[in-house]
Amino acid sequence: MSIKSQNIVEIEHRVSDQDRWQRQGHKGGVLWMTGLPGSGKSTLAFELERSLFAKGRQVFVMDGDNLRHGLNSDLGFSPQDRAENIRRVGEVAGLYASAGMITVTAFISPYQAARDAARAAAKDRFHEVYLSASLDVCEGRDPKGHYKKARSGEIPDFTGVSAPYESPEAPELVVNTGVLSVEESLALLEDYVAKAFALEAE
Amino acid sequence: MSIKSQNIVEIEHRVSDQDRWQRQGHKGGVLWMTGLPGSGKSTLAFELERSLFAKGRQVFVMDGDNLRHGLNSDLGFSPQDRAENIRRVGEVAGLYASAGMITVTAFISPYQAARDAARAAAKDRFHEVYLSASLDVCEGRDPKGHYKKARSGEIPDFTGVSAPYESPEAPELVVNTGVLSVEESLALLEDYVAKAFALEAE
Repeated sequence: MSIKSQNIVEIEHRVSDQDRWQRQGHKGGVLWMTGLPGSGKSTLAFELERSLFAKGRQVFVMDGDNLRHGLNSDLGFSPQDRAENIRRVGEVAGLYASAGMITVTAFISPYQAARDAARAAAKDRFHEVYLSASLDVCEGRDPKGHYKKARSGEIPDFTGVSAPYESPEAPELVVNTGVLSVEESLALLEDYVAKAFALEAE
Repeated sequence: MSIKSQNIVEIEHRVSDQDRWQRQGHKGGVLWMTGLPGSGKSTLAFELERSLFAKGRQVFVMDGDNLRHGLNSDLGFSPQDRAENIRRVGEVAGLYASAGMITVTAFISPYQAARDAARAAAKDRFHEVYLSASLDVCEGRDPKGHYKKARSGEIPDFTGVSAPYESPEAPELVVNTGVLSVEESLALLEDYVAKAFALEAE
């Protein structure tokens, strides 16, 4: 995206990433969860936040439901607004990562191009996690009743029913939440975080 | 602002503000610096970040110059874009505060209404800090040469020259950076933060 503003001089932060990481004992970055509605993104994100916080980590969850009330309250669900929604989320997640946080995001984020843009915004401190529960499983669960409303046409452009979901091409981690329990899924995530956000990690 | 999106259920974070504050030893919130161009916002913000970080605080600076390259790279300097710029900054600053950070923002933010909106977004964990250096002093310094360009018409709609600045009506703190040195100004800010972000603060 081109930068419209001019007369801008970028100022360096006086506290470096390394300063923050050393003090807190782990790196910052974005753990970007993607998957169909009902695949368990929000549930796992908040469970992971609780677990990592208890271990002394700097961690924060961004999820669509909450963000829609604030930063993105001007956006609806048109394709253009959905794209802008995810663009902003990616940028803000990157800002959190710059502050040293392990930022866990929980968005359907159905398009690979949008996820790639979020990766770029996080300056490659980005970990794409695909919650790979199948459509059948997710629709069978339907925790919020949204699939039913989508099938009846009450909710238009619903991912998996009337709007596409592009499976990640090369995610850093796949968690099959259609087969694994919440506890098993959480254990996989915790193992991944322990390695990927370690000070000695690449 | 009305919320366009529907079918939204707000999910509570599983780690409470109190959990975060207790662990880190201070509250989170927004320290919103406002003042004319050249009043010292960015300089003081980054000095304060360095100083608070050294004391073990969770702190992060958001400033306009950096944010324009990412989240707000789609915005220019029209009145409408400026307003949206500050609206987003206020929302993101509030998100940082939700993660327990002392968020220091360094934006001209010339309109009281926009600052009030940022206050609302931070759910009243908001501290308005007015850097009250006068126009004469700021224009005399002109660290980036912007006032000169504004007077010649090369930069349009420049706050203080060709666009208005509304002084804060009831700021939590006023620092007269036209009279005080950087060190003296920083000392005032540090004292304020020590009180306003203390666990026992109201």
